[in-house]
Amino acid sequence: MEMDLPAVQAFLAEHFPQGYGRVETVGPLTARLRLAVGDEHLRPGGTVSGPTTMGLADTALYVAILANLGPVAQAVTTNLNANFLRRPPVRDLIAEARMLKLGKRLAVGEVTVFSDGDDQAVAHVTATYSIPPREAATA
Amino acid sequence: MEMDLPAVQAFLAEHFPQGYGRVETVGPLTARLRLAVGDEHLRPGGTVSGPTTMGLADTALYVAILANLGPVAQAVTTNLNANFLRRPPVRDLIAEARMLKLGKRLAVGEVTVFSDGDDQAVAHVTATYSIPPREAATA
Amino acid sequence: MEMDLPAVQAFLAEHFPQGYGRVETVGPLTARLRLAVGDEHLRPGGTVSGPTTMGLADTALYVAILANLGPVAQAVTTNLNANFLRRPPVRDLIAEARMLKLGKRLAVGEVTVFSDGDDQAVAHVTATYSIPPREAATA
Amino acid sequence: MEMDLPAVQAFLAEHFPQGYGRVETVGPLTARLRLAVGDEHLRPGGTVSGPTTMGLADTALYVAILANLGPVAQAVTTNLNANFLRRPPVRDLIAEARMLKLGKRLAVGEVTVFSDGDDQAVAHVTATYSIPPREAATA
Repeated sequence: MEMDLPAVQAFLAEHFPQGYGRVETVGPLTARLRLAVGDEHLRPGGTVSGPTTMGLADTALYVAILANLGPVAQAVTTNLNANFLRRPPVRDLIAEARMLKLGKRLAVGEVTVFSDGDDQAVAHVTATYSIPPREAATA
Repeated sequence: MEMDLPAVQAFLAEHFPQGYGRVETVGPLTARLRLAVGDEHLRPGGTVSGPTTMGLADTALYVAILANLGPVAQAVTTNLNANFLRRPPVRDLIAEARMLKLGKRLAVGEVTVFSDGDDQAVAHVTATYSIPPREAATA
Repeated sequence: MEMDLPAVQAFLAEHFPQGYGRVETVGPLTARLRLAVGDEHLRPGGTVSGPTTMGLADTALYVAILANLGPVAQAVTTNLNANFLRRPPVRDLIAEARMLKLGKRLAVGEVTVFSDGDDQAVAHVTATYSIPPREAATA
Repeated sequence: MEMDLPAVQAFLAEHFPQGYGRVETVGPLTARLRLAVGDEHLRPGGTVSGPTTMGLADTALYVAILANLGPVAQAVTTNLNANFLRRPPVRDLIAEARMLKLGKRLAVGEVTVFSDGDDQAVAHVTATYSIPPREAATA
Protein backbone atom coordinates (compact mmCIF):
# COMPACT_ATOMS: atom_id res chain seq x y z
CA MET A 1 0.00 0.00 0.00
CA GLU A 2 1.10 3.52 -0.85
CA MET A 3 -0.95 5.54 1.66
CA ASP A 4 -2.22 4.75 5.16
CA LEU A 5 -5.52 5.88 6.67
CA PRO A 6 -4.40 9.33 7.90
CA ALA A 7 -2.71 10.06 4.55
CA VAL A 8 -5.85 9.11 2.64
CA GLN A 9 -8.07 11.17 4.93
CA ALA A 10 -5.79 14.21 4.56
CA PHE A 11 -5.75 13.86 0.76
CA LEU A 12 -9.54 13.66 0.57
CA ALA A 13 -10.05 16.59 2.97
CA GLU A 14 -7.91 18.73 0.68
CA HIS A 15 -9.16 17.53 -2.72
CA PHE A 16 -12.74 16.33 -2.10
CA PRO A 17 -14.11 18.48 0.72
CA GLN A 18 -17.70 17.86 -0.44
CA GLY A 19 -17.19 14.09 -0.90
CA TYR A 20 -19.36 11.18 0.12
CA GLY A 21 -18.65 9.56 3.46
CA ARG A 22 -15.77 9.16 5.91
CA VAL A 23 -13.01 6.59 5.39
CA GLU A 24 -12.95 4.09 8.27
CA THR A 25 -10.32 1.64 7.03
CA VAL A 26 -8.02 1.03 4.06
CA GLY A 27 -6.20 -2.22 3.36
CA PRO A 28 -4.59 -4.19 0.54
CA LEU A 29 -7.13 -3.73 -2.29
CA THR A 30 -9.87 -2.69 0.16
CA ALA A 31 -11.53 0.31 1.78
CA ARG A 32 -14.47 0.84 4.11
CA LEU A 33 -16.47 4.07 4.22
CA ARG A 34 -19.37 5.29 6.36
CA LEU A 35 -21.91 7.91 5.33
CA ALA A 36 -23.87 9.75 8.01
CA VAL A 37 -27.18 10.06 6.17
CA GLY A 38 -28.72 13.55 6.26
CA ASP A 39 -31.79 15.22 4.82
CA GLU A 40 -29.97 15.96 1.55
CA HIS A 41 -29.59 12.18 0.92
CA LEU A 42 -33.24 11.24 1.38
CA ARG A 43 -36.11 10.44 -0.97
CA PRO A 44 -39.81 10.78 -0.21
CA GLY A 45 -41.04 7.85 1.83
CA GLY A 46 -37.96 7.84 4.06
CA THR A 47 -35.27 6.08 2.06
CA VAL A 48 -31.74 6.97 0.95
CA SER A 49 -31.55 8.06 -2.69
CA GLY A 50 -29.92 5.92 -5.37
CA PRO A 51 -27.41 8.61 -6.40
CA THR A 52 -26.27 8.85 -2.77
CA THR A 53 -25.68 5.10 -2.67
CA MET A 54 -23.85 5.15 -6.02
CA GLY A 55 -21.77 8.16 -5.00
CA LEU A 56 -20.69 6.45 -1.78
CA ALA A 57 -19.76 3.24 -3.63
CA ASP A 58 -17.82 5.18 -6.28
CA THR A 59 -15.91 7.07 -3.57
CA ALA A 60 -15.11 3.82 -1.74
CA LEU A 61 -13.48 2.31 -4.83
CA TYR A 62 -11.66 5.57 -5.58
CA VAL A 63 -10.25 5.44 -2.03
CA ALA A 64 -9.16 1.79 -2.40
CA ILE A 65 -7.27 2.71 -5.60
CA LEU A 66 -5.78 5.82 -4.00
CA ALA A 67 -4.51 3.95 -0.95
CA ASN A 68 -2.96 1.22 -3.07
CA LEU A 69 -1.50 3.24 -5.96
CA GLY A 70 -0.90 6.60 -4.28
CA PRO A 71 -1.95 10.07 -5.35
CA VAL A 72 0.08 10.09 -8.57
CA ALA A 73 -2.63 8.27 -10.44
CA GLN A 74 -5.96 10.10 -10.65
CA ALA A 75 -8.42 7.34 -11.46
CA VAL A 76 -11.42 8.28 -13.62
CA THR A 77 -14.69 6.30 -13.43
CA THR A 78 -15.55 4.89 -16.86
CA ASN A 79 -18.35 2.44 -15.96
CA LEU A 80 -20.55 1.93 -12.92
CA ASN A 81 -23.17 -0.78 -12.54
CA ALA A 82 -25.47 -0.73 -9.52
CA ASN A 83 -27.97 -3.34 -8.36
CA PHE A 84 -30.42 -2.02 -5.77
CA LEU A 85 -31.42 -4.91 -3.52
CA ARG A 86 -33.52 -3.46 -0.70
CA ARG A 87 -34.81 -0.04 0.31
CA PRO A 88 -32.27 1.39 2.74
CA PRO A 89 -33.78 2.77 5.96
CA VAL A 90 -32.66 6.18 7.25
CA ARG A 91 -29.47 5.05 8.97
CA ASP A 92 -25.75 5.33 8.28
CA LEU A 93 -24.64 3.55 5.13
CA ILE A 94 -21.49 1.39 5.17
CA ALA A 95 -19.62 0.67 1.94
CA GLU A 96 -17.18 -2.26 1.79
CA ALA A 97 -15.03 -1.94 -1.35
CA ARG A 98 -12.67 -4.53 -2.83
CA MET A 99 -10.59 -4.26 -5.99
CA LEU A 100 -10.93 -7.20 -8.39
CA LYS A 101 -8.17 -5.95 -10.66
CA LEU A 102 -5.60 -3.19 -10.27
CA GLY A 103 -3.82 -2.99 -13.63
CA LYS A 104 -1.62 -0.35 -15.20
CA ARG A 105 -4.42 1.07 -17.32
CA LEU A 106 -7.65 -0.25 -15.81
CA ALA A 107 -8.90 -1.00 -12.32
CA VAL A 108 -12.13 -2.89 -11.53
CA GLY A 109 -13.76 -3.28 -8.14
CA GLU A 110 -16.94 -4.25 -6.34
CA VAL A 111 -18.71 -2.66 -3.38
CA THR A 112 -21.34 -4.02 -1.06
CA VAL A 113 -23.42 -1.34 0.68
CA PHE A 114 -25.09 -2.05 4.02
CA SER A 115 -27.28 -0.12 6.44
CA ASP A 116 -25.56 0.22 9.78
CA GLY A 117 -26.49 -2.69 12.03
CA ASP A 118 -27.98 -4.87 9.30
CA ASP A 119 -26.03 -7.63 7.54
CA GLN A 120 -28.25 -7.81 4.44
CA ALA A 121 -26.86 -5.67 1.63
CA VAL A 122 -28.99 -2.80 0.32
CA ALA A 123 -26.96 -2.43 -2.90
CA HIS A 124 -24.11 -4.01 -4.84
CA VAL A 125 -21.96 -1.97 -7.22
CA THR A 126 -19.17 -2.79 -9.66
CA ALA A 127 -17.15 -0.08 -11.39
CA THR A 128 -14.23 0.36 -13.77
CA TYR A 129 -11.61 3.10 -13.56
CA SER A 130 -9.17 4.34 -16.17
CA ILE A 131 -5.71 4.95 -14.71
CA PRO A 132 -4.10 7.75 -16.73
CA PRO A 133 -0.51 7.27 -17.85
CA ARG A 134 1.89 9.05 -15.50
CA GLU A 135 3.23 11.39 -18.17
CA ALA A 136 -0.14 12.37 -19.65
CA ALA A 137 -3.85 11.93 -18.94
CA THR A 138 -5.88 11.29 -22.08
CA ALA A 139 -8.34 8.48 -22.49
CA MET B 1 -49.73 8.79 -22.53
CA GLU B 2 -51.29 9.17 -19.12
CA MET B 3 -49.89 12.56 -18.06
CA ASP B 4 -48.91 15.64 -20.07
CA LEU B 5 -46.03 18.00 -19.29
CA PRO B 6 -47.83 20.26 -16.78
CA ALA B 7 -49.24 17.22 -14.95
CA VAL B 8 -45.79 15.66 -14.71
CA GLN B 9 -44.22 18.90 -13.50
CA ALA B 10 -46.91 19.34 -10.85
CA PHE B 11 -46.48 15.75 -9.64
CA LEU B 12 -42.70 16.13 -9.34
CA ALA B 13 -42.96 19.52 -7.59
CA GLU B 14 -45.17 17.91 -4.96
CA HIS B 15 -43.38 14.56 -4.53
CA PHE B 16 -39.72 15.25 -5.49
CA PRO B 17 -39.06 18.87 -4.50
CA GLN B 18 -35.32 18.18 -4.21
CA GLY B 19 -35.11 16.24 -7.50
CA TYR B 20 -32.62 16.40 -10.35
CA GLY B 21 -33.42 18.69 -13.25
CA ARG B 22 -36.44 20.28 -14.90
CA VAL B 23 -38.67 18.36 -17.32
CA GLU B 24 -38.64 20.00 -20.76
CA THR B 25 -40.66 17.49 -22.77
CA VAL B 26 -42.47 14.20 -22.38
CA GLY B 27 -43.65 12.00 -25.24
CA PRO B 28 -44.60 8.43 -26.06
CA LEU B 29 -41.87 6.45 -24.22
CA THR B 30 -39.61 9.53 -23.98
CA ALA B 31 -38.68 12.43 -21.72
CA ARG B 32 -36.13 15.24 -21.86
CA LEU B 33 -34.74 16.91 -18.74
CA ARG B 34 -32.34 19.81 -18.19
CA LEU B 35 -30.16 20.31 -15.12
CA ALA B 36 -28.85 23.77 -14.32
CA VAL B 37 -25.45 22.79 -12.94
CA GLY B 38 -24.54 24.47 -9.63
CA ASP B 39 -21.65 24.32 -7.20
CA GLU B 40 -23.20 21.34 -5.42
CA HIS B 41 -22.87 19.25 -8.61
CA LEU B 42 -19.18 19.89 -9.27
CA ARG B 43 -15.98 17.94 -8.73
CA PRO B 44 -12.49 19.37 -8.32
CA GLY B 45 -11.02 20.30 -11.68
CA GLY B 46 -14.28 21.80 -12.93
CA THR B 47 -16.40 18.89 -14.01
CA VAL B 48 -19.87 17.62 -13.14
CA SER B 49 -19.86 14.70 -10.69
CA GLY B 50 -20.79 11.18 -11.72
CA PRO B 51 -23.60 10.85 -9.15
CA THR B 52 -25.15 14.06 -10.52
CA THR B 53 -25.12 12.60 -14.03
CA MET B 54 -26.55 9.28 -12.84
CA GLY B 55 -29.21 11.01 -10.73
CA LEU B 56 -30.33 13.09 -13.70
CA ALA B 57 -30.50 10.01 -15.97
CA ASP B 58 -32.44 8.03 -13.35
CA THR B 59 -34.92 10.89 -12.95
CA ALA B 60 -35.37 11.18 -16.72
CA LEU B 61 -36.36 7.52 -17.01
CA TYR B 62 -38.62 7.79 -13.96
CA VAL B 63 -40.36 10.73 -15.67
CA ALA B 64 -40.78 8.81 -18.94
CA ILE B 65 -42.42 5.94 -17.02
CA LEU B 66 -44.59 8.33 -15.01
CA ALA B 67 -45.85 10.17 -18.09
CA ASN B 68 -46.69 6.94 -19.88
CA LEU B 69 -48.13 4.86 -17.03
CA GLY B 70 -49.46 7.56 -14.72
CA PRO B 71 -48.88 8.10 -11.00
CA VAL B 72 -50.53 4.85 -9.93
CA ALA B 73 -47.37 2.88 -10.52
CA GLN B 74 -44.40 3.96 -8.40
CA ALA B 75 -41.45 2.59 -10.32
CA VAL B 76 -38.42 1.49 -8.26
CA THR B 77 -34.91 1.45 -9.78
CA THR B 78 -33.45 -2.05 -9.57
CA ASN B 79 -30.40 -1.71 -11.86
CA LEU B 80 -28.49 1.23 -13.30
CA ASN B 81 -25.51 0.96 -15.64
CA ALA B 82 -23.60 4.12 -16.57
CA ASN B 83 -20.84 4.58 -19.12
CA PHE B 84 -18.95 7.85 -18.71
CA LEU B 85 -17.73 8.93 -22.13
CA ARG B 86 -16.22 12.41 -21.73
CA ARG B 87 -15.64 14.85 -18.88
CA PRO B 88 -18.63 17.20 -18.86
CA PRO B 89 -17.74 20.89 -18.75
CA VAL B 90 -19.54 23.19 -16.30
CA ARG B 91 -22.67 23.77 -18.37
CA ASP B 92 -26.29 22.63 -18.24
CA LEU B 93 -26.74 18.90 -18.71
CA ILE B 94 -29.47 17.60 -21.03
CA ALA B 95 -30.83 14.04 -20.58
CA GLU B 96 -32.71 12.40 -23.45
CA ALA B 97 -34.52 9.31 -22.12
CA ARG B 98 -36.24 6.60 -24.11
CA MET B 99 -37.97 3.47 -22.82
CA LEU B 100 -36.90 0.22 -24.49
CA LYS B 101 -39.55 -1.84 -22.73
CA LEU B 102 -42.57 -0.86 -20.66
CA GLY B 103 -43.97 -4.12 -19.33
CA LYS B 104 -46.39 -4.90 -16.54
CA ARG B 105 -43.66 -5.83 -14.07
CA LEU B 106 -40.43 -4.40 -15.53
CA ALA B 107 -39.48 -1.31 -17.50
CA VAL B 108 -36.10 -0.78 -19.17
CA GLY B 109 -34.80 2.42 -20.72
CA GLU B 110 -31.74 4.21 -21.98
CA VAL B 111 -30.58 7.81 -21.54
CA THR B 112 -28.03 9.83 -23.43
CA VAL B 113 -26.63 12.78 -21.47
CA PHE B 114 -25.24 15.83 -23.29
CA SER B 115 -23.67 19.12 -22.27
CA ASP B 116 -25.80 22.00 -23.51
CA GLY B 117 -24.65 23.07 -26.97
CA ASP B 118 -22.51 20.00 -27.65
CA ASP B 119 -23.76 17.02 -29.68
CA GLN B 120 -21.22 14.51 -28.34
CA ALA B 121 -22.64 12.56 -25.42
CA VAL B 122 -20.89 12.83 -22.04
CA ALA B 123 -22.58 9.72 -20.64
CA HIS B 124 -24.90 6.86 -21.58
CA VAL B 125 -27.08 5.13 -19.00
CA THR B 126 -29.41 2.13 -19.07
CA ALA B 127 -31.65 1.26 -16.14
CA THR B 128 -34.33 -1.21 -15.09
CA TYR B 129 -37.38 -0.42 -12.96
CA SER B 130 -39.67 -2.71 -11.06
CA ILE B 131 -43.34 -1.75 -11.46
CA PRO B 132 -45.17 -2.78 -8.29
CA PRO B 133 -48.48 -4.58 -8.65
CA ARG B 134 -51.39 -2.16 -8.20
CA GLU B 135 -52.81 -3.93 -5.15
CA ALA B 136 -49.50 -4.36 -3.31
CA ALA B 137 -45.85 -3.34 -3.56
CA THR B 138 -43.46 -6.11 -2.65
CA ALA B 139 -40.49 -7.18 -4.75
CA MET C 1 -33.06 -25.47 -0.03
CA GLU C 2 -35.61 -27.10 -2.32
CA MET C 3 -33.33 -29.39 -4.38
CA ASP C 4 -30.10 -31.19 -3.54
CA LEU C 5 -27.17 -31.78 -5.94
CA PRO C 6 -28.49 -34.99 -7.58
CA ALA C 7 -31.94 -33.44 -8.06
CA VAL C 8 -30.42 -30.35 -9.70
CA GLN C 9 -28.20 -32.44 -11.95
CA ALA C 10 -31.15 -34.60 -13.03
CA PHE C 11 -33.28 -31.54 -13.76
CA LEU C 12 -30.54 -29.94 -15.89
CA ALA C 13 -29.80 -33.18 -17.77
CA GLU C 14 -33.46 -33.35 -18.77
CA HIS C 15 -34.13 -29.67 -19.52
CA PHE C 16 -30.73 -28.22 -20.52
CA PRO C 17 -28.83 -31.06 -22.21
CA GLN C 18 -26.69 -28.58 -24.15
CA GLY C 19 -25.97 -26.36 -21.12
CA TYR C 20 -22.76 -24.78 -19.86
CA GLY C 21 -20.78 -26.71 -17.29
CA ARG C 22 -21.28 -29.37 -14.65
CA VAL C 23 -22.70 -28.55 -11.23
CA GLU C 24 -20.20 -29.42 -8.49
CA THR C 25 -21.99 -28.08 -5.41
CA VAL C 26 -25.16 -26.29 -4.42
CA GLY C 27 -25.79 -24.62 -1.07
CA PRO C 28 -27.91 -21.99 0.62
CA LEU C 29 -27.89 -19.18 -1.99
CA THR C 30 -24.81 -20.64 -3.74
CA ALA C 31 -23.71 -22.93 -6.55
CA ARG C 32 -20.37 -23.96 -8.04
CA LEU C 33 -20.00 -25.10 -11.66
CA ARG C 34 -17.05 -26.37 -13.69
CA LEU C 35 -16.71 -26.11 -17.46
CA ALA C 36 -14.35 -28.45 -19.29
CA VAL C 37 -13.13 -26.07 -21.97
CA GLY C 38 -13.18 -27.48 -25.49
CA ASP C 39 -12.38 -26.20 -28.97
CA GLU C 40 -15.87 -24.76 -29.34
CA HIS C 41 -15.19 -22.36 -26.42
CA LEU C 42 -11.93 -20.91 -27.71
CA ARG C 43 -10.94 -17.68 -29.39
CA PRO C 44 -7.91 -17.14 -31.64
CA GLY C 45 -4.79 -16.69 -29.55
CA GLY C 46 -5.72 -19.46 -27.14
CA THR C 47 -8.23 -17.93 -24.78
CA VAL C 48 -11.77 -18.80 -23.69
CA SER C 49 -14.43 -16.68 -25.41
CA GLY C 50 -16.44 -14.04 -23.57
CA PRO C 51 -19.82 -15.60 -24.41
CA THR C 52 -18.60 -18.91 -22.95
CA THR C 53 -17.67 -17.16 -19.70
CA MET C 54 -20.98 -15.27 -19.58
CA GLY C 55 -22.96 -18.43 -20.39
CA LEU C 56 -21.26 -20.31 -17.57
CA ALA C 57 -21.90 -17.49 -15.09
CA ASP C 58 -25.55 -17.20 -16.14
CA THR C 59 -26.02 -20.97 -15.73
CA ALA C 60 -24.39 -20.89 -12.28
CA LEU C 61 -26.87 -18.28 -11.02
CA TYR C 62 -29.77 -20.12 -12.64
CA VAL C 63 -28.67 -23.24 -10.75
CA ALA C 64 -28.40 -21.37 -7.44
CA ILE C 65 -31.97 -20.09 -7.89
CA LEU C 66 -33.23 -23.52 -8.95
CA ALA C 67 -31.69 -25.29 -5.96
CA ASN C 68 -33.12 -22.73 -3.54
CA LEU C 69 -36.59 -22.14 -5.03
CA GLY C 70 -37.22 -25.45 -6.77
CA PRO C 71 -38.30 -26.15 -10.32
CA VAL C 72 -41.68 -24.44 -10.02
CA ALA C 73 -40.17 -21.05 -10.75
CA GLN C 74 -38.50 -20.71 -14.14
CA ALA C 75 -36.20 -17.73 -13.69
CA VAL C 76 -35.61 -15.53 -16.76
CA THR C 77 -32.43 -13.46 -17.10
CA THR C 78 -33.31 -9.78 -17.47
CA ASN C 79 -29.88 -8.15 -16.99
CA LEU C 80 -26.31 -9.44 -17.08
CA ASN C 81 -23.23 -7.32 -16.44
CA ALA C 82 -19.79 -8.86 -16.99
CA ASN C 83 -16.36 -7.44 -16.16
CA PHE C 84 -13.52 -9.27 -17.90
CA LEU C 85 -10.47 -9.07 -15.67
CA ARG C 86 -7.77 -11.28 -17.23
CA ARG C 87 -7.45 -13.44 -20.33
CA PRO C 88 -8.38 -16.96 -19.27
CA PRO C 89 -5.89 -19.63 -20.32
CA VAL C 90 -7.13 -22.85 -21.92
CA ARG C 91 -8.05 -24.67 -18.72
CA ASP C 92 -11.27 -25.61 -16.95
CA LEU C 93 -13.31 -22.63 -15.78
CA ILE C 94 -14.83 -22.60 -12.28
CA ALA C 95 -17.84 -20.40 -11.52
CA GLU C 96 -18.68 -19.57 -7.90
CA ALA C 97 -22.19 -18.09 -7.74
CA ARG C 98 -23.86 -16.39 -4.79
CA MET C 99 -27.34 -14.86 -4.63
CA LEU C 100 -27.45 -11.30 -3.24
CA LYS C 101 -31.25 -11.22 -3.20
CA LEU C 102 -33.87 -13.91 -3.69
CA GLY C 103 -37.19 -12.09 -3.71
CA LYS C 104 -40.65 -13.08 -4.86
CA ARG C 105 -40.36 -11.24 -8.18
CA LEU C 106 -36.63 -10.57 -8.65
CA ALA C 107 -33.42 -12.39 -7.85
CA VAL C 108 -29.94 -10.83 -8.08
CA GLY C 109 -26.63 -12.63 -7.82
CA GLU C 110 -22.91 -12.38 -8.45
CA VAL C 111 -20.45 -14.87 -9.90
CA THR C 112 -16.69 -14.96 -9.77
CA VAL C 113 -15.10 -17.01 -12.56
CA PHE C 114 -11.65 -18.60 -12.07
CA SER C 115 -9.33 -20.71 -14.18
CA ASP C 116 -8.74 -24.04 -12.52
CA GLY C 117 -5.72 -23.85 -10.22
CA ASP C 118 -5.47 -20.06 -10.19
CA ASP C 119 -6.95 -17.92 -7.41
CA GLN C 120 -7.09 -14.69 -9.42
CA ALA C 121 -10.51 -14.19 -11.00
CA VAL C 122 -10.74 -13.99 -14.80
CA ALA C 123 -14.23 -12.45 -14.77
CA HIS C 124 -16.89 -11.12 -12.43
CA VAL C 125 -20.57 -11.16 -13.38
CA THR C 126 -23.74 -9.84 -11.78
CA ALA C 127 -27.18 -10.69 -13.13
CA THR C 128 -30.86 -10.15 -12.40
CA TYR C 129 -33.63 -12.71 -12.91
CA SER C 130 -37.36 -12.25 -13.13
CA ILE C 131 -39.26 -14.89 -11.16
CA PRO C 132 -42.61 -15.45 -12.89
CA PRO C 133 -45.72 -15.60 -10.73
CA ARG C 134 -46.72 -19.20 -10.06
CA GLU C 135 -50.10 -18.95 -11.75
CA ALA C 136 -48.85 -17.14 -14.89
CA ALA C 137 -45.59 -16.15 -16.56
CA THR C 138 -45.69 -12.72 -18.13
CA ALA C 139 -43.16 -9.98 -17.54
CA MET D 1 -13.08 4.47 -42.03
CA GLU D 2 -10.06 2.20 -42.29
CA MET D 3 -11.66 -0.94 -43.79
CA ASP D 4 -14.63 -1.44 -46.10
CA LEU D 5 -17.11 -4.32 -45.99
CA PRO D 6 -15.11 -6.83 -48.10
CA ALA D 7 -11.93 -6.08 -46.12
CA VAL D 8 -13.75 -6.62 -42.82
CA GLN D 9 -15.34 -9.85 -44.04
CA ALA D 10 -11.97 -11.18 -45.24
CA PHE D 11 -10.32 -10.31 -41.92
CA LEU D 12 -13.03 -12.07 -39.91
CA ALA D 13 -13.01 -15.16 -42.16
CA GLU D 14 -9.29 -15.50 -41.49
CA HIS D 15 -9.17 -14.64 -37.79
CA PHE D 16 -12.63 -15.56 -36.43
CA PRO D 17 -13.83 -18.52 -38.52
CA GLN D 18 -16.14 -19.69 -35.72
CA GLY D 19 -17.52 -16.19 -35.04
CA TYR D 20 -21.08 -14.99 -34.48
CA GLY D 21 -22.99 -13.75 -37.51
CA ARG D 22 -22.32 -12.29 -40.94
CA VAL D 23 -21.45 -8.62 -41.42
CA GLU D 24 -24.06 -6.90 -43.59
CA THR D 25 -22.88 -3.28 -43.44
CA VAL D 26 -20.16 -1.15 -41.87
CA GLY D 27 -20.22 2.64 -41.65
CA PRO D 28 -18.76 5.54 -39.69
CA LEU D 29 -18.97 4.23 -36.09
CA THR D 30 -21.55 1.59 -37.06
CA ALA D 31 -21.94 -2.04 -38.11
CA ARG D 32 -24.85 -4.34 -38.80
CA LEU D 33 -24.64 -8.12 -38.41
CA ARG D 34 -27.08 -10.96 -39.06
CA LEU D 35 -27.05 -14.33 -37.33
CA ALA D 36 -28.76 -17.29 -38.99
CA VAL D 37 -30.07 -19.00 -35.86
CA GLY D 38 -29.39 -22.74 -35.72
CA ASP D 39 -30.02 -25.53 -33.22
CA GLU D 40 -26.78 -24.75 -31.39
CA HIS D 41 -28.19 -21.28 -30.45
CA LEU D 42 -31.49 -22.44 -28.97
CA ARG D 43 -32.83 -22.93 -25.47
CA PRO D 44 -35.64 -25.22 -24.40
CA GLY D 45 -39.01 -23.68 -25.19
CA GLY D 46 -37.88 -22.41 -28.57
CA THR D 47 -35.93 -19.24 -27.86
CA VAL D 48 -32.44 -18.00 -28.70
CA SER D 49 -29.99 -18.30 -25.81
CA GLY D 50 -28.68 -15.28 -23.93
CA PRO D 51 -25.00 -16.07 -24.64
CA THR D 52 -25.81 -16.21 -28.36
CA THR D 53 -27.38 -12.76 -28.20
CA MET D 54 -24.46 -11.36 -26.17
CA GLY D 55 -21.90 -12.98 -28.49
CA LEU D 56 -23.56 -11.44 -31.53
CA ALA D 57 -23.69 -7.99 -29.91
CA ASP D 58 -20.04 -8.23 -28.82
CA THR D 59 -19.00 -9.22 -32.34
CA ALA D 60 -20.98 -6.33 -33.86
CA LEU D 61 -19.14 -3.77 -31.73
CA TYR D 62 -15.80 -5.45 -32.42
CA VAL D 63 -16.55 -5.13 -36.15
CA ALA D 64 -17.49 -1.45 -35.83
CA ILE D 65 -14.17 -0.76 -34.08
CA LEU D 66 -12.25 -2.85 -36.61
CA ALA D 67 -13.77 -1.06 -39.62
CA ASN D 68 -13.08 2.36 -38.12
CA LEU D 69 -9.61 1.82 -36.59
CA GLY D 70 -8.24 -0.94 -38.82
CA PRO D 71 -6.67 -4.26 -37.85
CA VAL D 72 -3.69 -2.72 -36.06
CA ALA D 73 -5.66 -2.33 -32.86
CA GLN D 74 -6.97 -5.58 -31.37
CA ALA D 75 -9.78 -4.41 -29.12
CA VAL D 76 -10.39 -6.46 -25.95
CA THR D 77 -13.82 -6.51 -24.27
CA THR D 78 -13.53 -5.28 -20.68
CA ASN D 79 -17.21 -4.79 -19.78
CA LEU D 80 -20.48 -5.96 -21.29
CA ASN D 81 -23.95 -5.08 -19.99
CA ALA D 82 -27.00 -6.75 -21.52
CA ASN D 83 -30.67 -6.03 -20.96
CA PHE D 84 -32.96 -8.78 -22.22
CA LEU D 85 -36.24 -7.19 -23.27
CA ARG D 86 -38.33 -9.91 -24.94
CA ARG D 87 -37.94 -13.60 -25.68
CA PRO D 88 -36.55 -13.85 -29.21
CA PRO D 89 -38.44 -16.24 -31.48
CA VAL D 90 -36.49 -18.73 -33.62
CA ARG D 91 -35.64 -16.37 -36.47
CA ASP D 92 -32.51 -14.57 -37.69
CA LEU D 93 -31.16 -12.04 -35.23
CA ILE D 94 -30.07 -8.61 -36.46
CA ALA D 95 -27.56 -6.55 -34.44
CA GLU D 96 -27.28 -2.80 -35.06
CA ALA D 97 -24.09 -1.50 -33.41
CA ARG D 98 -23.07 2.11 -32.87
CA MET D 99 -19.94 3.42 -31.16
CA LEU D 100 -20.56 6.08 -28.49
CA LYS D 101 -16.87 6.77 -28.00
CA LEU D 102 -13.79 5.73 -29.96
CA GLY D 103 -10.83 6.97 -27.94
CA LYS D 104 -7.15 6.11 -27.98
CA ARG D 105 -7.41 3.77 -25.01
CA LEU D 106 -11.10 2.99 -24.62
CA ALA D 107 -14.04 2.48 -26.94
CA VAL D 108 -17.68 2.28 -25.82
CA GLY D 109 -20.65 1.28 -27.94
CA GLU D 110 -24.27 0.18 -27.84
CA VAL D 111 -26.12 -2.51 -29.78
CA THR D 112 -29.81 -3.07 -30.33
CA VAL D 113 -30.70 -6.65 -31.25
CA PHE D 114 -33.86 -7.40 -33.26
CA SER D 115 -35.56 -10.51 -34.57
CA ASP D 116 -35.76 -10.38 -38.34
CA GLY D 117 -39.00 -8.76 -39.42
CA ASP D 118 -39.88 -7.28 -36.02
CA ASP D 119 -39.10 -3.68 -35.04
CA GLN D 120 -39.27 -4.24 -31.27
CA ALA D 121 -35.86 -4.92 -29.81
CA VAL D 122 -35.24 -8.26 -28.07
CA ALA D 123 -32.09 -7.05 -26.31
CA HIS D 124 -29.95 -3.96 -25.74
CA VAL D 125 -26.23 -4.23 -25.00
CA THR D 126 -23.52 -1.73 -24.10
CA ALA D 127 -19.86 -2.71 -23.96
CA THR D 128 -16.43 -1.22 -23.34
CA TYR D 129 -13.23 -2.20 -25.16
CA SER D 130 -9.62 -1.60 -24.23
CA ILE D 131 -7.54 -0.53 -27.23
CA PRO D 132 -3.98 -1.77 -26.63
CA PRO D 133 -1.13 0.65 -27.29
CA ARG D 134 0.39 0.02 -30.72
CA GLU D 135 3.81 -0.93 -29.37
CA ALA D 136 2.61 -3.26 -26.61
CA ALA D 137 -0.56 -4.87 -25.38
CA THR D 138 -0.81 -4.92 -21.60
CA ALA D 139 -3.81 -3.76 -19.63
